[in-house]
Amino acid sequence: MENLENSTDCKETVSPRNNSGSTLNSSVSCHDGKAMGFVLVHAGAGYHSESKAKEYKHVCKRACQRAVDSLRAGGLALEAVTAALIELEDSPFTNAGTGSNLNLSGEIECDASIMDGKSLNYGAVGALSGIKNPVLVARRLLNETQKGKLSAGRIPPCFLVGKGAEQWAISHGIPACPTEKMTTKFSLSGYKRNKRKMELAEQVETKRKRQSCGHENDFGCLEPVGDIMVEGEENNSACLDTVGAVVVDREGNVAAAVSSGGLAMKHPGRVGQAAHYGCGCWAENARDVSLYSTAVSTSGSGEHLIRTMLARECSTAMQAENAHQALLEAMQNKFISSPFLAGEDCVLGGVIVLRCCTCGEDQRSEDIQALLVEFLWSHTTESMCVGYMSAQDSKARTHISRLPPGAVAGQSLAIEGGVCRLGTATD
Amino acid sequence: MENLENSTDCKETVSPRNNSGSTLNSSVSCHDGKAMGFVLVHAGAGYHSESKAKEYKHVCKRACQRAVDSLRAGGLALEAVTAALIELEDSPFTNAGTGSNLNLSGEIECDASIMDGKSLNYGAVGALSGIKNPVLVARRLLNETQKGKLSAGRIPPCFLVGKGAEQWAISHGIPACPTEKMTTKFSLSGYKRNKRKMELAEQVETKRKRQSCGHENDFGCLEPVGDIMVEGEENNSACLDTVGAVVVDREGNVAAAVSSGGLAMKHPGRVGQAAHYGCGCWAENARDVSLYSTAVSTSGSGEHLIRTMLARECSTAMQAENAHQALLEAMQNKFISSPFLAGEDCVLGGVIVLRCCTCGEDQRSEDIQALLVEFLWSHTTESMCVGYMSAQDSKARTHISRLPPGAVAGQSLAIEGGVCRLGTATD
Repeated sequence: MENLENSTDCKETVSPRNNSGSTLNSSVSCHDGKAMGFVLVHAGAGYHSESKAKEYKHVCKRACQRAVDSLRAGGLALEAVTAALIELEDSPFTNAGTGSNLNLSGEIECDASIMDGKSLNYGAVGALSGIKNPVLVARRLLNETQKGKLSAGRIPPCFLVGKGAEQWAISHGIPACPTEKMTTKFSLSGYKRNKRKMELAEQVETKRKRQSCGHENDFGCLEPVGDIMVEGEENNSACLDTVGAVVVDREGNVAAAVSSGGLAMKHPGRVGQAAHYGCGCWAENARDVSLYSTAVSTSGSGEHLIRTMLARECSTAMQAENAHQALLEAMQNKFISSPFLAGEDCVLGGVIVLRCCTCGEDQRSEDIQALLVEFLWSHTTESMCVGYMSAQDSKARTHISRLPPGAVAGQSLAIEGGVCRLGTATD
Repeated sequence: MENLENSTDCKETVSPRNNSGSTLNSSVSCHDGKAMGFVLVHAGAGYHSESKAKEYKHVCKRACQRAVDSLRAGGLALEAVTAALIELEDSPFTNAGTGSNLNLSGEIECDASIMDGKSLNYGAVGALSGIKNPVLVARRLLNETQKGKLSAGRIPPCFLVGKGAEQWAISHGIPACPTEKMTTKFSLSGYKRNKRKMELAEQVETKRKRQSCGHENDFGCLEPVGDIMVEGEENNSACLDTVGAVVVDREGNVAAAVSSGGLAMKHPGRVGQAAHYGCGCWAENARDVSLYSTAVSTSGSGEHLIRTMLARECSTAMQAENAHQALLEAMQNKFISSPFLAGEDCVLGGVIVLRCCTCGEDQRSEDIQALLVEFLWSHTTESMCVGYMSAQDSKARTHISRLPPGAVAGQSLAIEGGVCRLGTATD
């Protein structure tokens, strides 16, 4: 997949509110080898400082490798996407699992969800404490729904929250993990700084003046950037963000997952898009040969991603002929300019998207002949860190996509991507 | 609105899996009076015994009256729908607020959400204990999102769960309510019966044999019916169900809400459709004159309603020309035969739907000239209890819609509705 890096050069930044949107071109990379799948991961849409870029890229690289290891070992999309998420959650640099943002009470409460494009089953957890890998609980919930009814005809849950979710996880063999072990020096110092700034802000705002998108923020208080709160100075920026992955396997099945520690200083019990069906992730195998299989994972301001159901909207859009154009229009019309966010002048989020179809003459075989994979990312935040890898690659490619200088975060977007043709299983 | 009852005679039951679907006709009721709005409520899709019919109808009647009182006092759709929900939650007969189903631990955990069609704002709570009226917390969350950012630029939450939601409610002036006060003799005796039956079922199923849709249920254990678990014998049926309402006000704004105690014997922390965006309720004002304003509230098996996003799907469908036909097709194709429920042979749920448009010559006036309101309900469960009333009516109409004898719940559906033209504000 030597040409993949070139394909990411097809970058264009547009400001939809200024009507400067245009279609992107992408280069096509052909690879003949065993069609064993492809993974695209993100370590969040937000603000990634240059000084931390290396660490974020490294996390994405390892996550891709874990997914590809799973695919090479015969794992399907669901296993591979779980493997990628575990790696992303375990990194102390990401806002998911270990190193998650702390809430107002100084506690970690995680959201995560996973969707299987083949069965269309789904599992999610919200405001979950005390479990090292929230994605494993979401995955286990998904597995349980696939087994059918519980005793006495009860329908298994697909979404559990809070203490009940933690108890369910432990009773299903997922070990408990003390919050202290998941809290890092980084998240703790961020919490302390944020707390001081909030107290200062609340002193200044004696009549708690409501602000719009961090404007009138002249006493140096926090600004929300995606799931992040940063402090303006790059060196101190607490760049902790939601993570996610999308995968297609050797059979052409897609899967998607997302995991987040949520907004820093959130109210306890707040659940963001990562635990919302249709908002955090989406995966849907093609139901006939005229359709694409699609998988999406999102990041950013949870409430904006919820109200726009961005994951599902992007998945639906991906059935259009031109993937770049379709994603561009979805990000413009269904996100930045969405009527559901009419009151917001700063709409922060990002998506990774994968769509694929079988190509070649013989589409009847169970082991598909060839798989055309189009993969894209788009964000309205300052930056987004992504990684991607096919099962034939020796190592993952990583990239921090940025809005160009002068573009206004929350009102403009960047979109990039590539195309990869995976060879037949019988080559 | 004397002809409204006639309009509900336009009843037809179809079994989509047998390809016997057909279009329904509805009679039109014209009423010239002050255009002050219309409310449609439900006390759940499930199984309503003849012996309890009077109580369910009475609850619906009172809820309609509360909404109409609010409209007559100058309240808009959001106030009126909240007023209806409070009445429905306060009834010990419904599975919402007081009298909610108890979970596996014998506790009450409620889900509720509310959506405003004008602002498209949304608020929801999940697995909430200790608050008498969960809809009030959802409503307060919605209100807070309308005020803009919190201190230090934080985005206000739209969805809170568990203990955090309870704390947030109390800190926002909503009084705590001890669980004992919300537990009724009825819910407690149902819990004890269900617990015994579950223990028996689990003894019999030593290797916890998974069942499909309550079949192979030959040791007399529980069957899921909507959010209900009933015991077969009508006289003992614990008919406790989700509630909801949809309203249009004098300005043509729509609002929708839903509230539920969830599935009986659910795992603690389980969140159902009533707290899921797009699944429990939906309200969307028409954005231009070529569109309808729509409002939807759902009831039934939470996990089925989540995975099919039934509220939003029905809202989208309601933009088609023929409302009955559109709802029929949505219930067939997006619910009973949904690819998202491919493994389910028993898909249980119900919806109430309202759509409206302005009619007459002058559509520019703020006080709309006349409002054409189409209202429908449809269910795949044995029965569904509804009530409806316009602000001009002296009392509400109520009705328990039932599948005809021989129709198979979970595979067939009933659909009914009516049309009401509300007069101008200047008549």
